[in-house]
Amino acid sequence: MFPDERSHEPEPLERELDQLCATARACYARGWVPATSGNFSVRSAGRIFITPSGFDKGTLAPTDLLEIDLEGKALGGQGRPSAEASLHTVIYRERTQARAILHIHSIWNTLLSGKFASSGYVVLRGYELLKGLAGVSTHEHTERVPIIENTQEYAPLADHLGSVLCDNPGAHGVLLSRHGLYTWGESVAEARRHLEALEFLFEVEGRQLFGQPA
Amino acid sequence: MFPDERSHEPEPLERELDQLCATARACYARGWVPATSGNFSVRSAGRIFITPSGFDKGTLAPTDLLEIDLEGKALGGQGRPSAEASLHTVIYRERTQARAILHIHSIWNTLLSGKFASSGYVVLRGYELLKGLAGVSTHEHTERVPIIENTQEYAPLADHLGSVLCDNPGAHGVLLSRHGLYTWGESVAEARRHLEALEFLFEVEGRQLFGQPA
Amino acid sequence: MFPDERSHEPEPLERELDQLCATARACYARGWVPATSGNFSVRSAGRIFITPSGFDKGTLAPTDLLEIDLEGKALGGQGRPSAEASLHTVIYRERTQARAILHIHSIWNTLLSGKFASSGYVVLRGYELLKGLAGVSTHEHTERVPIIENTQEYAPLADHLGSVLCDNPGAHGVLLSRHGLYTWGESVAEARRHLEALEFLFEVEGRQLFGQPA
Amino acid sequence: MFPDERSHEPEPLERELDQLCATARACYARGWVPATSGNFSVRSAGRIFITPSGFDKGTLAPTDLLEIDLEGKALGGQGRPSAEASLHTVIYRERTQARAILHIHSIWNTLLSGKFASSGYVVLRGYELLKGLAGVSTHEHTERVPIIENTQEYAPLADHLGSVLCDNPGAHGVLLSRHGLYTWGESVAEARRHLEALEFLFEVEGRQLFGQPA
Repeated sequence: MFPDERSHEPEPLERELDQLCATARACYARGWVPATSGNFSVRSAGRIFITPSGFDKGTLAPTDLLEIDLEGKALGGQGRPSAEASLHTVIYRERTQARAILHIHSIWNTLLSGKFASSGYVVLRGYELLKGLAGVSTHEHTERVPIIENTQEYAPLADHLGSVLCDNPGAHGVLLSRHGLYTWGESVAEARRHLEALEFLFEVEGRQLFGQPA
Repeated sequence: MFPDERSHEPEPLERELDQLCATARACYARGWVPATSGNFSVRSAGRIFITPSGFDKGTLAPTDLLEIDLEGKALGGQGRPSAEASLHTVIYRERTQARAILHIHSIWNTLLSGKFASSGYVVLRGYELLKGLAGVSTHEHTERVPIIENTQEYAPLADHLGSVLCDNPGAHGVLLSRHGLYTWGESVAEARRHLEALEFLFEVEGRQLFGQPA
Repeated sequence: MFPDERSHEPEPLERELDQLCATARACYARGWVPATSGNFSVRSAGRIFITPSGFDKGTLAPTDLLEIDLEGKALGGQGRPSAEASLHTVIYRERTQARAILHIHSIWNTLLSGKFASSGYVVLRGYELLKGLAGVSTHEHTERVPIIENTQEYAPLADHLGSVLCDNPGAHGVLLSRHGLYTWGESVAEARRHLEALEFLFEVEGRQLFGQPA
Repeated sequence: MFPDERSHEPEPLERELDQLCATARACYARGWVPATSGNFSVRSAGRIFITPSGFDKGTLAPTDLLEIDLEGKALGGQGRPSAEASLHTVIYRERTQARAILHIHSIWNTLLSGKFASSGYVVLRGYELLKGLAGVSTHEHTERVPIIENTQEYAPLADHLGSVLCDNPGAHGVLLSRHGLYTWGESVAEARRHLEALEFLFEVEGRQLFGQPA
């Protein structure tokens, strides 16, 4: 069902940026980036191409992307980087193979990240779809998706995210509580595969958990 | 994630009307204006451009819009203004910066406005998506969405809406019980951002509340 | 919100058939006619134009329609009329103003028609969307949608449907238990308005009722 | 509603492959093959045309398909067959009339196949939509969809599937627990009809069962 050997030849940058924008538009169509929320990026040769703050993802095109360096400094493009650009730079630092990051808000990741905030993880196990995550070859895998408490203080949040990534080297994504999911991959295609697998499993879990009195 | 400084340069009227109609068609595609329900308007230079009564929003184009003045009197266009045009004029009077109003019916706003009618508010707090609302910079914000009892008596309803808007100066939207949501913004884009943020949060709340015996 | 005075000038037949097929395709896209289910018709000058049996509604075009008379006898077109064509002829006989009939299967009409089969009605009241039904001018209206026990014996079913329509002159639709909804209108647009209003309200009711142990 | 007499003239291969790919793309749009999951095939004259491993089904075209023989050996095309190709060959062997196989993952088939894994079947009865399954002419039919425990050991899984198909000659589909559905038909159109009917009924059952504490 899923590829056992994944190609590691990097795609040309132009193609990756096209795929990033197509992914962002598809996320808008699914209701995953409402109200100009969410952000998306590609890393290439020490530069990050990232969505500008407050941009409607339903119409995103490569020329809308900003170029920043790995410290988050603007190199080119119109508009301002989102305050969350600092979280992208932390992920690229801690996940050295990552070339694409997707951040979205869904109904189910909002519900699960709130419900399990105190336990610190959403735990997914026993599902075939886990094999959509890189390096996972069996449904018997247990994926622990760390949950970080939401805050508007981005400097400590970036530090916190960095230590969570360091402490959970096998994690394919991180949740911010009642906020959203960050996931990544060695290509836009792999990041998108992770996104689709995690969100599918969040919905499966969520439909078993919600519906009763809060 | 969301814009901190929002541009206040008004968009050209023609572009606003195009965006209003695109928003109406997108709402139809999401099931938010079933059965020719809902209404949408833009204010410009003392005039209001508004959807006619009983029009299918799935095909709305700028030439379908009616032009009325701020007292609701017809100035141009075919068809009759909806009885709810009087609610638009009240909102434009009480929210002097508003340039666009969106009124839609969703499953979740119908359910929540019914459930909380007696308490008078749907309360939303602790969600990152609250930052989709103008002037809100933290998920720690509490948004109280007032609920007005539904009625077919539009003159007293308009008065009631006026006093609710006056008493709740921070509200970004108002619900009519088992009827629908009114929201607005300084542009169509801002009104749409409010709509997407509020409806996302209504669904998040609704999925925690419903499913058990009524 | 809804039209108070509805135009009764009949649309040209060609336009009605185009709208019927567009409605059928839209129903397919919403998952309301899965597995080649559902059927749709227009009446004009003593003839009925109806979908053939077992046809995928996602691709329906006017040239795919069959022509039958009011007794259900084939007049033209390829394929066989569905066994349910006899239900269309009964509806046209009992609802003399009806010019279009839509029959669809949805998750929510299947659930509600099963749950309330023994009480004989799905009762809808207190919702603004009731005004999407012809002649209804207030949310205080009570719509009782009759439920008929499902059967494969079409002759007695047609008789049963005829008497239910006769006994419930105000009904805008009829449910077959764990099967689907029939609704109609004086035009395709009106029938579609009834469909969208009823299905919206079935979902609102269903989300309050289901989710607990069966 | 459903065809009583189904045509058994085989469609030309080219047309079947086009329909297979259109079905795969439609499944992607419905969220039924997330994260490059799922697989699809057509049998013709002793050859099987099947989706390659790890391919995004949202863009599938006939030239992407692999050609294998009935033992699963590659005959042509780029990429590797999925490990699950062995399950397709077993189904074609046990269901000698089958010319198309569809394998998808949905929220509801994942939930139901997990919940009923220990009882060995999802039981569907009393629904009109059962008539979407070949040879079923009444809603009084009882469809028992066998559930096989998921495993990554494909050789014993293929054997297990073979014996389940043999023991359940009337079954129109088989579930792998917390994994997905296999269904088939004498044409792509028939397989798709089975898929739409089964998934509709899984959702109807699922909405009655889930929502309470797990």
